[in-house]
Amino acid sequence: MTAYWGPVVPSRGVLRPVGPHQVRLTGGLWGRRQAVNGTATIEHCASWLDRMGWTGNFTEPNGAMRRGREFSDSEVYKLTEAMCWETARPGGNRHDERLARFTALIAGAQDADGYLHTAYGRPGQPARYRDMNFGHELYCAGHLIQAAVAAERTGAAPGLLQVACRVADHVGEAFADEGFCGHPEVETALVELYRVTGQQRYLDQAAAFVQRRGYKTLPEHEFGWGYFQDAVPVRDGEAFAGHAVRALYLAAGAVDVAVETGDDDLLHAIARQFDRTLARRTYLTGGMGSRHLDESFGEDFVLPSDRAYSETCAAVATVHLAHRLLLATGEMRYGDIVDRVLHNVIATAVADDGQSFFYAHTLHQRIPAPLPPPDHEQLRFGGGGRAPWFEVSCCLNNVARLLASLGTYFVTESDDGVQLHQFAPMRVEAAGLTLDVDTAYPDSGTVTVTVVDAPPEPRTLTLRLPAWAAGADAPEGVFRRVFRPGEQVRVELPMRPRWTFPDPRIDALRGCAAVEVGPLVMCAESIDQEADVRLDELQVDTSVAPEATAVKGRRTRPTDREWPYQSHRITTERPDPVVVPLLPYHRWARRGPSTMRVWLPTT
Amino acid sequence: MTAYWGPVVPSRGVLRPVGPHQVRLTGGLWGRRQAVNGTATIEHCASWLDRMGWTGNFTEPNGAMRRGREFSDSEVYKLTEAMCWETARPGGNRHDERLARFTALIAGAQDADGYLHTAYGRPGQPARYRDMNFGHELYCAGHLIQAAVAAERTGAAPGLLQVACRVADHVGEAFADEGFCGHPEVETALVELYRVTGQQRYLDQAAAFVQRRGYKTLPEHEFGWGYFQDAVPVRDGEAFAGHAVRALYLAAGAVDVAVETGDDDLLHAIARQFDRTLARRTYLTGGMGSRHLDESFGEDFVLPSDRAYSETCAAVATVHLAHRLLLATGEMRYGDIVDRVLHNVIATAVADDGQSFFYAHTLHQRIPAPLPPPDHEQLRFGGGGRAPWFEVSCCLNNVARLLASLGTYFVTESDDGVQLHQFAPMRVEAAGLTLDVDTAYPDSGTVTVTVVDAPPEPRTLTLRLPAWAAGADAPEGVFRRVFRPGEQVRVELPMRPRWTFPDPRIDALRGCAAVEVGPLVMCAESIDQEADVRLDELQVDTSVAPEATAVKGRRTRPTDREWPYQSHRITTERPDPVVVPLLPYHRWARRGPSTMRVWLPTT
Repeated sequence: MTAYWGPVVPSRGVLRPVGPHQVRLTGGLWGRRQAVNGTATIEHCASWLDRMGWTGNFTEPNGAMRRGREFSDSEVYKLTEAMCWETARPGGNRHDERLARFTALIAGAQDADGYLHTAYGRPGQPARYRDMNFGHELYCAGHLIQAAVAAERTGAAPGLLQVACRVADHVGEAFADEGFCGHPEVETALVELYRVTGQQRYLDQAAAFVQRRGYKTLPEHEFGWGYFQDAVPVRDGEAFAGHAVRALYLAAGAVDVAVETGDDDLLHAIARQFDRTLARRTYLTGGMGSRHLDESFGEDFVLPSDRAYSETCAAVATVHLAHRLLLATGEMRYGDIVDRVLHNVIATAVADDGQSFFYAHTLHQRIPAPLPPPDHEQLRFGGGGRAPWFEVSCCLNNVARLLASLGTYFVTESDDGVQLHQFAPMRVEAAGLTLDVDTAYPDSGTVTVTVVDAPPEPRTLTLRLPAWAAGADAPEGVFRRVFRPGEQVRVELPMRPRWTFPDPRIDALRGCAAVEVGPLVMCAESIDQEADVRLDELQVDTSVAPEATAVKGRRTRPTDREWPYQSHRITTERPDPVVVPLLPYHRWARRGPSTMRVWLPTT
Repeated sequence: MTAYWGPVVPSRGVLRPVGPHQVRLTGGLWGRRQAVNGTATIEHCASWLDRMGWTGNFTEPNGAMRRGREFSDSEVYKLTEAMCWETARPGGNRHDERLARFTALIAGAQDADGYLHTAYGRPGQPARYRDMNFGHELYCAGHLIQAAVAAERTGAAPGLLQVACRVADHVGEAFADEGFCGHPEVETALVELYRVTGQQRYLDQAAAFVQRRGYKTLPEHEFGWGYFQDAVPVRDGEAFAGHAVRALYLAAGAVDVAVETGDDDLLHAIARQFDRTLARRTYLTGGMGSRHLDESFGEDFVLPSDRAYSETCAAVATVHLAHRLLLATGEMRYGDIVDRVLHNVIATAVADDGQSFFYAHTLHQRIPAPLPPPDHEQLRFGGGGRAPWFEVSCCLNNVARLLASLGTYFVTESDDGVQLHQFAPMRVEAAGLTLDVDTAYPDSGTVTVTVVDAPPEPRTLTLRLPAWAAGADAPEGVFRRVFRPGEQVRVELPMRPRWTFPDPRIDALRGCAAVEVGPLVMCAESIDQEADVRLDELQVDTSVAPEATAVKGRRTRPTDREWPYQSHRITTERPDPVVVPLLPYHRWARRGPSTMRVWLPTT
């Protein structure tokens, strides 16, 4: 099978994306995750979409009988997109039958004028476009367009592109002069549709949506206009703010518009806001969003471990955004945040069997929360365990589409050569080179690239060197020469466990440290601790170098008092030395109810 | 005028309440606040109730035209209660005309069968009692009953008691066998109605409501059954949990039931839960509720300053609960939390002019939030400034009824004498004694009690000694003798400013200290700091004794980095010594947008 392009194909930029057919993940953490995703997760999601009635909505003649939230159509679209990438990727599982069924369902629900949403405009339903704050109509249109782009680029779902174009044309007519959606998403989708079809009007509409935002023209919201990025014009922001997923989807769309329209001011504005967000509003895991109430970024340095929202969808969106900036600018550093997010949020989000999921990603679980029931959707984001489905199930299908297209985020090419941004066992074909990458990363720092085939001209092979690999013994990551079949390039990344300390302005982390190993954030989980040792009574000794599996510390015995505020500094009585076993954060909560901490108080 | 009883009149207990006529606040902080409340605040609230249509709902014939949230009736009831206490208190302002109008409005909206709620059961409205999670029907009934109790005990609103009894009788019939309200409130109200009328059925119904709770019989909620205290039976809880106001109202009702039915097991269960809540789930200010999302308590030691919800209503409820436990047990220590809550939450909640209000009480304002518009209701809890009204305006009318009846919470009596739990300039008549209390508390620790009149038998005069006054030089607070007119008793409470340190298990406060002076929590507000000194760059030196108006510290200059987590401990570069001016927390946010911290990082 052949797939010529992936999800993001800018018409210009410093680096070029590779198509799904150019990167075959052959094993390791991500090869396994992608394989499970292509079978178990996609089947699981498809089954729940039917069970919840969200596919059935497309053929339900009685509008009042529609089931699910106002954005449930988008889940069908995201899973369609996932199935397209999965069907097309080398070694992927074909989902032709279901793709044909979904395409027919979707096409059948389209109104004569092109409008397509199962929750509005039919008898017994609210009118179209009356609730731009929360209606999610353009959001859903965006996901349909992205699915159609995948369908077109992979050939996996014939007919969907026409449906999407009619939707896009209807959106263009309805929003020719004003208005935009409370939940960004259609912006990036319309640019990609422009890239597929060459129709300038889709790009113009996306640019207009980006431009109109930030003037408080949406109805006032209880969380303020900032919640849906209508408080400040897109290019004037200091850092991403408001609802994290909305902010990041909008930023991705703004980069797309900037690249296609040559609007460097806009591109630099988003790059600057992303930098500031990374410097001040991002968890150690790479997760974003520190408030449960409105699923939003907090102010600078507001990063409480125990209320980390760090929604899975925000992590997916961070990959989307970083990849776009990487392509546009060629700055390899954008791979660092992708690496971090993949290994510490995306890898954490999915159970080993691919059938239960975290929606939010706390960095501090205080009580061993009961696991969600295995056959029941969660009404909210869930607690201490992964759930099979959620009333709002955005994250599941979002991860599915990311994992199915994952290889396209690992590698880029240029006229001159190939850039390896992420490390996994894989076969890469790009810039005339065929490469086999062999590595146990992140369990090992050794990355070996074997040249299988090469042109007679010189090529540059670039491996990203993560920021944590910088220093005196940093390896070299750029190799330029005429490569010969059979020759190898090897990079050794330093995987020594390291203590990590927070910026002193992060109030929530004062007096704490964490352990990292390569891209992995480590944590202490109660199930691994000595009997009777509680995680909220531990202090670790950062004067002793950490090991990958444990650190040294002591157990305190806090005295219970009638009032927890005292006129003297409350010191530890009779601390016992203890060894604190650690494990990678993404492995936590896989062995039953437990407590967990990433950041540990220091002695 | 004469008012014989206040809001809480148990038929048994170690201490007896005084009636509103027995305590006249004559000046000081609370005398001023009560005076402003009785005029400006009550007028302000009444005006907004009309403007928002919440009074109009009682005469609106078209059910579909009803305005406001499902609980807006309760605001009319709470203000009615406030006006009754205000009209009856010594020196209070009469509100007879409005009370008559409100009584007529309320009585006129009652259905033939006794049901009374403007949001349900009429054409165009949902059916009665269909949404026990959120309908707030019994919650509103409870507030109506409390207003009627005030009306009866003060004589200020004739006719209201009959309306309330018919409501209560309807509730008794509708909920004879099962069911209860998602928002507790009717429990404590029904017990007080029993106390007024002697009708056993009201007490039985309240006891049944308390008993039924905790078995997950309300419909599942996205925040879990714990949100509305239906996860664990009332007497089995460890600490208060879920929505803070609901939990505290329920606890007050449970104490009332326990006292009247002689259920000591229930009384001790609530006392134990309150103790644990004070030890682990209460802010330094006495505020309760650490989560914005569900307005709930967090787990033990989850007390983030910047997301303190600490709702004003929770503080009112804490006063209600502590007072009930004080009367039942005679333990003077319950006055400590009332003192703390009054001076640090209630005093903070209301602007000096009595016309704008905090709903939530952050202990750390990170950005100088714009003030709410002066003539517009807040859609949510608000930010850095007090707002004139809220879409959910529970707190305003709740404070109004508390302040109007405040004297009844300050003093109790017994056969043997008088107990002064709170210190304010006031005239007290109890246990045959007439006392003039003179004090500038909390600005001074001197409390002088002058005996105006006294019986020829010995009496015991007891002044509460706060826990912070304990120690080597603690004064004596109990005086027993035959008092003579003109003689004085004086207590000197130590008002030396003191450093306060948190329990090490409060992650959010690690490495921080606060300053307290008597019952006052102090804070640093940006407006008082030296130019260029930012509150998030300060460290204070706890080796130097604090002064009431300032502490010593240093200004750090954190270095901005691309990524806020580093492999070395990030230390302060070039710290400058600074003096950090302080002010009482309840005085903050009265001079325009600012940032503020209660807890300050230490050097």
